[in-house]
Order: sequence, then structure tokens, then C-alpha cells
Amino acid sequence: MTTGYVYNEVFGWHDTGTNAGLFPADHRLGIQPFQHFENAETKRRLHELVVVSGLIDQLTPVRPRKATDEEILLVHTEEHLARIQAGSDHPKGGDSGDGLSPFGPGGIEIGRLAAGGVIALVEQVVDGAVDNGYALVRPPGHHAVPEHGMGFCMFANLAIAAKAVRRSRGVERIAIVDWDVHHGNGTQAAFYDDPDTLTISIHQDRVFPPDTGLVEERGTGAGEGYALNIPLPPGTGHGGYLAAMDRVIAPAIDRFQPDLVLVASGFDANAADPLARQGLTSSAYRTMTERLLEVAGQHAGGRLAMSHEGGYNPVYVPFCGLAVIEALAGVTEPLADPYEPIFGGMGQLELQPHQTALLDQVVPLLDAIGSGTRA
Amino acid sequence: MTTGYVYNEVFGWHDTGTNAGLFPADHRLGIQPFQHFENAETKRRLHELVVVSGLIDQLTPVRPRKATDEEILLVHTEEHLARIQAGSDHPKGGDSGDGLSPFGPGGIEIGRLAAGGVIALVEQVVDGAVDNGYALVRPPGHHAVPEHGMGFCMFANLAIAAKAVRRSRGVERIAIVDWDVHHGNGTQAAFYDDPDTLTISIHQDRVFPPDTGLVEERGTGAGEGYALNIPLPPGTGHGGYLAAMDRVIAPAIDRFQPDLVLVASGFDANAADPLARQGLTSSAYRTMTERLLEVAGQHAGGRLAMSHEGGYNPVYVPFCGLAVIEALAGVTEPLADPYEPIFGGMGQLELQPHQTALLDQVVPLLDAIGSGTRA
Amino acid sequence: MTTGYVYNEVFGWHDTGTNAGLFPADHRLGIQPFQHFENAETKRRLHELVVVSGLIDQLTPVRPRKATDEEILLVHTEEHLARIQAGSDHPKGGDSGDGLSPFGPGGIEIGRLAAGGVIALVEQVVDGAVDNGYALVRPPGHHAVPEHGMGFCMFANLAIAAKAVRRSRGVERIAIVDWDVHHGNGTQAAFYDDPDTLTISIHQDRVFPPDTGLVEERGTGAGEGYALNIPLPPGTGHGGYLAAMDRVIAPAIDRFQPDLVLVASGFDANAADPLARQGLTSSAYRTMTERLLEVAGQHAGGRLAMSHEGGYNPVYVPFCGLAVIEALAGVTEPLADPYEPIFGGMGQLELQPHQTALLDQVVPLLDAIGSGTRA
Amino acid sequence: MTTGYVYNEVFGWHDTGTNAGLFPADHRLGIQPFQHFENAETKRRLHELVVVSGLIDQLTPVRPRKATDEEILLVHTEEHLARIQAGSDHPKGGDSGDGLSPFGPGGIEIGRLAAGGVIALVEQVVDGAVDNGYALVRPPGHHAVPEHGMGFCMFANLAIAAKAVRRSRGVERIAIVDWDVHHGNGTQAAFYDDPDTLTISIHQDRVFPPDTGLVEERGTGAGEGYALNIPLPPGTGHGGYLAAMDRVIAPAIDRFQPDLVLVASGFDANAADPLARQGLTSSAYRTMTERLLEVAGQHAGGRLAMSHEGGYNPVYVPFCGLAVIEALAGVTEPLADPYEPIFGGMGQLELQPHQTALLDQVVPLLDAIGSGTRA
Ligand SMILES: [Zn+2]
Ligand SMILES: [Zn+2]
Ligand SMILES: [Zn+2]
Ligand SMILES: [Zn+2]
Repeated sequence: MTTGYVYNEVFGWHDTGTNAGLFPADHRLGIQPFQHFENAETKRRLHELVVVSGLIDQLTPVRPRKATDEEILLVHTEEHLARIQAGSDHPKGGDSGDGLSPFGPGGIEIGRLAAGGVIALVEQVVDGAVDNGYALVRPPGHHAVPEHGMGFCMFANLAIAAKAVRRSRGVERIAIVDWDVHHGNGTQAAFYDDPDTLTISIHQDRVFPPDTGLVEERGTGAGEGYALNIPLPPGTGHGGYLAAMDRVIAPAIDRFQPDLVLVASGFDANAADPLARQGLTSSAYRTMTERLLEVAGQHAGGRLAMSHEGGYNPVYVPFCGLAVIEALAGVTEPLADPYEPIFGGMGQLELQPHQTALLDQVVPLLDAIGSGTRA
Repeated sequence: MTTGYVYNEVFGWHDTGTNAGLFPADHRLGIQPFQHFENAETKRRLHELVVVSGLIDQLTPVRPRKATDEEILLVHTEEHLARIQAGSDHPKGGDSGDGLSPFGPGGIEIGRLAAGGVIALVEQVVDGAVDNGYALVRPPGHHAVPEHGMGFCMFANLAIAAKAVRRSRGVERIAIVDWDVHHGNGTQAAFYDDPDTLTISIHQDRVFPPDTGLVEERGTGAGEGYALNIPLPPGTGHGGYLAAMDRVIAPAIDRFQPDLVLVASGFDANAADPLARQGLTSSAYRTMTERLLEVAGQHAGGRLAMSHEGGYNPVYVPFCGLAVIEALAGVTEPLADPYEPIFGGMGQLELQPHQTALLDQVVPLLDAIGSGTRA
Repeated sequence: MTTGYVYNEVFGWHDTGTNAGLFPADHRLGIQPFQHFENAETKRRLHELVVVSGLIDQLTPVRPRKATDEEILLVHTEEHLARIQAGSDHPKGGDSGDGLSPFGPGGIEIGRLAAGGVIALVEQVVDGAVDNGYALVRPPGHHAVPEHGMGFCMFANLAIAAKAVRRSRGVERIAIVDWDVHHGNGTQAAFYDDPDTLTISIHQDRVFPPDTGLVEERGTGAGEGYALNIPLPPGTGHGGYLAAMDRVIAPAIDRFQPDLVLVASGFDANAADPLARQGLTSSAYRTMTERLLEVAGQHAGGRLAMSHEGGYNPVYVPFCGLAVIEALAGVTEPLADPYEPIFGGMGQLELQPHQTALLDQVVPLLDAIGSGTRA
Repeated sequence: MTTGYVYNEVFGWHDTGTNAGLFPADHRLGIQPFQHFENAETKRRLHELVVVSGLIDQLTPVRPRKATDEEILLVHTEEHLARIQAGSDHPKGGDSGDGLSPFGPGGIEIGRLAAGGVIALVEQVVDGAVDNGYALVRPPGHHAVPEHGMGFCMFANLAIAAKAVRRSRGVERIAIVDWDVHHGNGTQAAFYDDPDTLTISIHQDRVFPPDTGLVEERGTGAGEGYALNIPLPPGTGHGGYLAAMDRVIAPAIDRFQPDLVLVASGFDANAADPLARQGLTSSAYRTMTERLLEVAGQHAGGRLAMSHEGGYNPVYVPFCGLAVIEALAGVTEPLADPYEPIFGGMGQLELQPHQTALLDQVVPLLDAIGSGTRA
């Protein structure tokens, strides 16, 4: 198994300022300066663990390049690109669109490298230069809609990459799974009317954006049925996630018969994330990766690429991310996760009836998914 | 309303080292040095918000003193005290008992001041020098059992204070509510056979300690029925907590008719805590405080004192803590919590059927609670 | 001895962003995000040491208030005030004037409290409510010239306070000593033509501003002779500083016969500061304080007030600052400085011939100083 | 020009704890927990700048390996190795020997990799696999004497490498230049009686160790004359350093005619270092590197390898280190150093008479240096 790996130290230089978690510091509001939840630590520490654990020796480095205007405009509007450029040119930097997503002077170049890093990886996967791969990029992308960024995301990295390889390599059928704990609204928006791109977002019910990601959002026009949402209740652990994998995600991909499987890989569904309330540990991420590899192997020649999204616990994201990349690389003797017994030891992480009830709502929607011209 | 307030900057100097969240850093295990989850930030930032918001002007400072050996031994064994002293005397410091609870050289003195700070506050409340109060101390205490510390706790601050005022002031009936998201196992252990001390712990089901805090734990011997546990499922928000307050906590105190109400006030049930999966916001903490003030007013002459326990999100604990202290002080124009709309906007934070089911198990246990010789 | 002490936690909330020491982060220039040299740590840690050492119990708290427009305009132009207000109103904050002095939204209010904190202290000293005092404020002030801020300084805190008490209390003759390692150019500028205000800056030769603070700068017009500069060579230790105190500073004040002595108290001449190259330890600061107390006792009834300025080593500033405040308070058993043997152990910190040569240039300038109408 | 480069992310995981700069935190002594001066930031940020600037593409990665017991014992005693092993096996870690040099559990392995990284680089330089090179390792080594570590150093990395290639490759004559601002006492001790190894330490007079590095220390026995010390006065800038290079260091190497030139490359003589008082900027480091390359080219076939030592300003070390590595690699369009105008703008950084006086003492000592059997 050859697994591509994208990282560049400059991803850690994306500057989200002294926001106190979310908001700019302002003593009049009682907000003391601190650091943004979306700071460099989770990503830098994951990369360092990839190196220190020795996993790096089993990966094939893929060099990120900067996405061009043309590539970014495959998803975004000219207005959005211009806004990011303007913020990047300002001496105090700018914001990607919602006031919660700051970036520093020159920030657009890091955003281009994040998007272009994912493109480069997906190109190599499609070209067979590597079997699969992981792009550890920053800023994240899955909340960025065509018209603006939001939720700490500047450009829709993975959606851009999907459109780029469709254009450059003629890839027809693409399945995109988003296991970030927040709704993959940006990715969904980019393909909402497209029956050749199946988007599946598994997330915690209405966390962010606060009002999207409902079961009822299923795509529109020709794309109707090709957007799936699995809004799991708060407090869901491996039980609910693996059931969703078995009952919804794998079967949906199975029906869809993609040429390529992409994953928006956030780690904020882990049991120690501050920005959501789910309960996964590294072993759940490992298992989910293995399931997706299996289904990608059946339909897409194993072509699977992941792009890093959220995840805000600097201590635990590294171990969850390591498990995923180890699984991609087929590592047979993975590093033990010392936090698993603690974080995974909470009560009621097994499948619960109210989680099953949600899945029962989603399962019937699979019927609408076809395999395109292959059928 | 006069509200006492205990804080000393040295609480921020309790040194939990470079543990990566929980475990000592060790590159062989893939654990990069970082900071302990239980570091100074949440507490220091809460204190600074108390000052910067101006609330400090409405509080009465209560000066902490160091708990004596005699006071500590009201709860703990001589062996435990000796172990902490030995660690404190070691040039590299020690650990309170479970390998997850480090402290630095001289650490016992900070532990004495934390316990003694709670004693001083409770004494003033009992003496009527203040109506109620909040002790913002560190290290926390509610996991420390008589034989050893654990869960970041060195001494059982609140249990020691309860026994100290019972001894020095003859306070007979004490109700202790523990809303830290973890089980108040140490406090429970200190009074497990004591029918004059009602302990109520509302927590997330089996987080820490991993196997205690079950509904079945009810006290022993004469104390049978005087320990209550409310192990809410993961993902519970204000709905479940306020229902528990209405259906269990307030009625239990009502039956018990205490002379004094104490609260182990952790903020790790908030919606952004990394170490648990519940969903409270500052308004829920405010409401819970108001309910307890009300019931303390009915039975204990309003005598209510809180001791700070866990809470691991440095951004959000300050706003939750501020709301509680504002409520204690009867502030009528509280500071707006800017995070409330975000953190409290998640789906399914209202009361859910599986949470009601848990409360249905606990409610019948109230029948065993009597009001002692008053009845 | 009664010693006033000004501090407010909000001084630590003055937000200097993620500048890498000096400059805004910008990956295109190779500047990784970090923290500004002028961040909260040195001041917050000094305050915490004042508390933890117990010194706080020997001080009289003086509450800071916000300087009014009228007070600020005693030194600054309307244009400068308007610029700070505009930056303060901007969602990304502003800069005090040179691009190296950022502040956050609402920052002007913290600047007002810093200036007003110094005013409040000086008023109490003049009124005899306290004998002397220390204002631990932030942002600093001594580089701010009438037309703009610079060098991390927003408003000329100490110059404003001097003019304010002259106006409100009729204080006539004021001596201002600036021992910050950088030239007190702002304070000097505020009184350059004023023979009733003697400004003495002892600093390292041409560090900041890069081209001021020369021996030749002596005041203008009626003020000629009433500005003194002592630009010590890099590498000067206690030897050179105490010789300067004996040969220049004390004799100058002696001749001037002030009613009030003010000190711009930066700690960046200490032996571990990153932004200058001098070699003082806490004992040198203690001795300098004692000398100034002595001379203030002879001429100004002991009326001496200090305002905190620079100092950028978070480890060592606290011990230097503590020594100064202990000396003000007449503490007879000061806390031992554990760093003194290390930082003060460097070679050649005694008086060196090339330092004497500089002092020899300055000493003759004392002849021009008169005692005003008293003479 | 081929330039080897050693780095491994685990060097940033060497855990120096929560020491406040130097000493373990202890509230009884007024020492608040903080970070050790010798923490990961200066090195990690230098590495990241090497990547982000693009310089990495012009370097040849050299993989570090762990130094063996046999290699370490070329310099150190069995007792020292056993002490480090014991500390490494302790759950709280250990100290390298002086109480100021902590390391964490498993720390010996990082120490082995640092020493072995330097060995690997020097081997490749000697073998001609690369022309020259830089080993960015941590912990540092130049203070470690045979019997114990000290001054943040565990093993004498560069001395071990010198002895290792002498043994394995038969390298005879080795010149070691140490431009760390502190005395290279450990390196000097390892070769004090060896006429085949010329050690030259240029440092600030008596900083650390407090009493070594005097001009009078010249070697012993057969090695007499082959240790040189240049204890520059505090406050020395590029003027004094470049004069020392011209008048002492280059001529000494010229006389010695080495087969290999090694450099202990600390950056704590820079103008913003907290632990010393010198005034170099990146351009001085660049020039010094060019001079050494020149002299190594004349005598040692250009074989020059550098090992990273001290340097404690996280903002400025990266730019100084970058300049050195750029110079090694013969980069013709180096990155501009934005801090140079500020930090290098201080007065009196040009050669001063009292610095010349020191050099005048050292120059005559060159006469004792011979070129061995080549003469
Ligand atoms: Zn997310
Ligand atoms: Zn807790
Ligand atoms: Zn200064
Ligand atoms: Zn050094």
C-alpha cells in the first residue's frame, strides 16, 4: 500500500490571532485575549506524532502547490476570492466571512496551499502514483460555501479538489464522506444539484452551522437524493457511528459505485473535543477508515483521499489522526493510544435506541441513490 | 445579599507540569509535552473576569488560610497526608495518588490553602458574616477519598470544610450538591454512612471515576439513603439538568431540611468542556444557582457556600463561573455571555426521553430521605 | 511608611496580538506568529509575586480611574486621541503610531485606565494619603510623544500625571527620573522647554528610539539645562548605574529641589532582558530606589511615585519589581532573589573606565540646574 | 555546494518542564511555574523557517541516528551515562547534573539522537557525501563535561562526534570553534591535553560557567596552546566579533591546518538574547560563517560541520540560524532579516577600544599553535 502525505510547516503559520476561542478579545465584553480554537497546535502535533512515531517512513510525501485562481473559482465566486485577497493585503489581515474566521497578512497564500495540497494529493491518487493519501492542511475547508468562507474555513479545499480532478482527469463519479462533527455544508453546497457527486455528512445534530445538515436536505434537481445527512444526537459514541457506517455510509457508496472516494476528515467527533459532544476514540476512527478503504476497494480501485478538517483538542487529535493514517498505510503494528481507555471508558458510548431511531430515518433514503450510467 | 469570595493568586501556581492533558510526556509513547488539562487558566481567567466585569466590587473578600493537619485528618488518613508531604518535599514534586494528579515542590502548602480557603468561607457563611459565598480554589477536591487523592484532587476541600464547621460550629445537617460533571466520589466517601450529611452528585454517567456514581450507590448503614447519584447520559443539556433540579435535587434538600447547603461547583458539564460531553451554558448554571439559593433560603437561612472543582475550557468556564457568582450576589444586570448563542445552540439540549427515564429511576429514592430529629 | 499600589487585572487584557516580538506575523517575510515582546506576562507575574510573597499586605491599594480627554490632552494632541479612538473602535483594533504598538478593540479604555491609574497614585502621594507608591499599569507610556504613540506606548502616562497634579494640586517643581533602558523620549518631549520639570533619563546608548537620548539633548528655551540624558554603553552593570546615581542623578535632584519625584520604572536594564544589553539585578534596583527615596526625603517630603514602563523577561522582571516595591514600603526582610547569583555573576558588571568616561561628560551639565524661585 | 541538514521533530519533545527560566517553580521561593529558557521554540521555529523560506529545498537531509554507549563513552564516564539512564527511567525524569538541566521520562533517547545526529552529519561531511552541514539538534552539548552534564546540556554532542570520526575515519586534526555566547567548557575539557584538536571558544566574559573561559586557560601537557579562549566584554557587537575572527580565529585555524572544522553554533550572542549581553545580528553570523567556510576551504577541503547549541530568543534565533545555513549552502539571494535594523541599530556595536584590548591579550597566544606533523 502506498499512502501519500501532504504537510507543510506553513500550515501552522495560518494566523487566527488572539481570539478567545471564537470571538475577538474585547475587555468591554469580558473577553480576555487567548488563542482561537482553530490554532496550529492540533495539526502541528499530529504531524510531529506522524514523524516521531516513525509512521512518516511508511508514507510517500506529496508536495503541496498553490491552487490557482482558476481552480478556486471552480467552486467559489469572484467576489469571495476578491474578499480574501483584500483581507490578505490588509496590514491587520482579514476574515473569511463570518467574523469567526480570521487570517493574517498574506493569509490567502496559505489558503491556496491548503486547497492546492488537497488537489495535489487527489491528483496523485487518481493517477495511481499513490494508492490513497492524507492531506494534513490548514485552514480547513468544508464549511466554505461558494459565496463566502465561514466556520474557520477559507476555501472549500476538498470540493475544489474534486472539481479539479474531474476537469483535469475526467473523474466522473465521486463520493465524499464528511465525518467532521459539524455539517459539511460547504461541500454539500458545491454539489447540491449534481448526481455524479454523492455527499454524505455524518455529524452531530445542529452544532454548526446551527440550522443545516438535517435529514431533509437531500439535494436538488438532478442531484436530488445525492446529498445525505446523518445528524446524530449529542453524546453518540462508536456505537452510533459504526452503525451509521454499516447501515448508511457503506451501503450508500455501494449503490453509488464511485470512481473516487474523498473524505473530509475532521476529528472533532472525538470524546475530548471542546466544540462538540460526541464520543469517538482513535479505534473508532481506525475502524471507519478500514470500512471506507474496503468499500473504496470494491468500487473505486481503492482510490481514497482524505483532507484534514476540524478537531480542537491538541492532546487527542494527534492520536486519532495517527490511527487514520496508519489504517490508510496498512500499518499492522499501530502505536497504542494511551488515552483510549480514559476517553473511551465513558458510559453509554455503545449504540443507543435514540441513535438507532435517527438511522432508521436515513436508511430509506438510500433507495434514491443510483450508480449512474453504470446501472 | 452579602457574598463572600475566596481567591489567592497562588492557586494559579499549583504546578501540574508538562503533562499532555493527562499523562506525563514521553516520546516513546508518542506523548508530546504540553500542559495538563488541570492548569491555571480556567481559574485565573474566571478570577480576572470577576474583576474586569466589576463584579468584584459587589463581593466581600474572604481571606483563605492554610488548613491544619488536624482539619485535613478530619477526612484523610495519616498515610495520605504523609504521602503529599513527601511529594511536596521532593525536588521534582509528587502526585496526589493516581499518576494523573501531579504537583510541584511545596505543593502541599497550596493544597492546604485550597482546603483552608473553603473552610474559611464556610465558617463565615455559618457565622453569618456573609450570606453565601464562592471559594475559587485550586487544586480541586471532590475526587479525593480518605486514603488518597485522585482525578487532579489533593485534599477533599469541601468535605473537610463540612466536617470542620460541624466540629467548630456544631452545624448538624449539611446537604452537599456536586454538579461537577464527574462523580463526586470523594465527598460521597467521606459521608457514606452519615445520615446527617446528604450528598447529591449529578454527573455524566461513568466518566470519572469510570465505575462509580451509579444510581445504586445510596449510602450505607445509618447513612443509607443519604447518598444520591444522578448519572445523566452523555449529551444532556439544560433540559435534563433542570429537570433533575426540579424532580430530584430540590425535593431531596426539601425533605432533608439542612442547616447548610454546600456545592461542589465544577464547570465541566458546560457545552464546550473537553473532558465530558454535556451541554450546559452559563444560563443553566445561573438558573441552578437560583434554585439552590431558593431551597437554601427555605431551610438553611440561605446559608450556601460553593467550592470550585473542575472545568477545563479556559474560554468558557469564566462565563459560567461568573453567572454563578452573579446569581449568588443577586446581581440584577448580569454581563451578557457572548458564547451562549453558539454553545447553547446545539440540537437536542432540551429534555430527552432517555434522560427522563434516568430521572424516573432516581425519584423514588427520595422517599428514604428524612429530616432527622426535626421530623 | 505607607506605600500605594495600583493594579487592575484588565491591564493584562491589553491585546498586543500575535506579533512575533515586534512585527506582525507574515509568512511571506518569514515571520511566524508568536507573541509580542510587550505582552501581559511580565506585569501579571510581577503582580502575582507581590501577592504570593505577602508584600501586598504591606501596601495600600489605590484604585485606578480612567483618564479623561481633558487630562490626556494636557500632553497629547487632539489628533492623537482621535487616532487611538478610531483604532479602538475598529473590529481589528489599531496601533498607537509606529506599527509596532498594536492594541485591540476597546483598547483606548485600558489606555485611559493606565494613565488614570498613574494620576490617581500621584494625587494620593501629593495629598499625603500615602507616602509613596507604585503604579503597575499597562500599556506603558514613556515613549509616547504629544503627537503619537510609539515603542509599545499609547499615552504618556507619567507626563500626564505630572501635568494633572500640577494643574489640580498646584505642584510646582517635579523631577522625573526614567530608568527604563530605553530613552524616555516622550516624557522629555512633554517638558522640554519647562524649567520647573527636571527630566533625567538613564538608558543604554541609542537603543530606542534609535537616535535620541544623546548627552547633547538638554532642553530648550527656558527649559535649557532641565533635560538630562545618560546614555550608558551596552554591557553596563550595577557599577555604572550606581555611579550614575551618585554622580549625576542624586546631585541633579539635590540641586533642583523638587516638590515631587516621579520615576518611569522600566525593568529592561536587567541582566536578562531581551531588548537591551545592560546587566542590573534586583539588588541594583533596590539600591537605586533607596537612593531616590533618600533624596526625595530631603527635598520633596518623601513624595515619590513610580509608573511601570518596559521590561520583557517574564521570569526576572517580577523579582526586580518586587525589590523596588519592597524598598518603597520599607520592607526589612525582603524575599531572596534566586536569580541574582546567576544573572549578576557575569564578568565586568562593576564600573568600567568607558562608563566613567560617559559620566564625565554628563557631570558638568549639572551646573545649569537651579532650584527655581527657591534659590 | 551540498549542505547536509539534520533535524527531527523529536528534538522539540525534549521536556525541560515548567521551570521558570532556570529554576524549578516553587511558590515558597516566589518562583511561579513557567517554561525553561531552553525550551523547544527557538529550535522548532528555526526549522520551520528553514522550511517556509524554501531553504530546505537546497539542503540534503541527513538522518540522525542514536549514539551508542560506546560512542558516548568516548567522552563521558560510565557514571554519567548511568545517571542519565536512571533519570530517564524515573517517572518524573531526571537532571543532567546541575539542577538546571531537567529532562523527561525517556529523555536519554533524545539525547542519544542529538549526539548521534551530529555524528551522522560529521561522518557525511568527512566522507564527502555532503560538503558541509548543520545539525539542528536538541538538547545542546557544549557544556557537558566528561563527568556530568550542565548548562542545559546532556551529552557533549560535538566532542563525541569529533572523537567518533577520528576513530571511525581516522580524521587527525580537528579545529572546533565555539561561538555560543557561553564558554564551551565541555568541548574544551574533552580535548584539553590533545594537540591534535584545537578548541577556540569566543564568548562573553564569565557568564556561564561563571568562572571558566579565561584567556589563561590554554590547554595542558601536550595540548598546551591548543585551547584558546576569547572572553569578550559584555556589550560587544559585530565589531568585536569580526575583529576576533580576523585577528584570532581565522589565523589560529590557518596555523593549525585542520582536516576538519567543527562549529558549536549557539545563537545567544545575538542582540536580543535574554541570557547574555552581546549584540550580534544575522548579518554578523552570516559573515562569520563565510569566514569559516573560507578558512575550511583552504585547509580542510571545505569540510565544515556545525552543531546547534544555545540561543534563547524564539523570535530572533530563527533569522540568525537561517543566515548561517544559507551561508553554508551558498544561497545567493538570502531572505531579508526584518529585525536586523532594529536589533543591530544599537549604539556602540562597532569595535570598541576595550574590546581591542582583550584581543591584544589573545593574539600572542597564536604563536604556540603548530600544524602538527605537517609542519
Ligand atoms: Zn468541525
Ligand atoms: Zn470534573
Ligand atoms: Zn524600555
Ligand atoms: Zn549558550
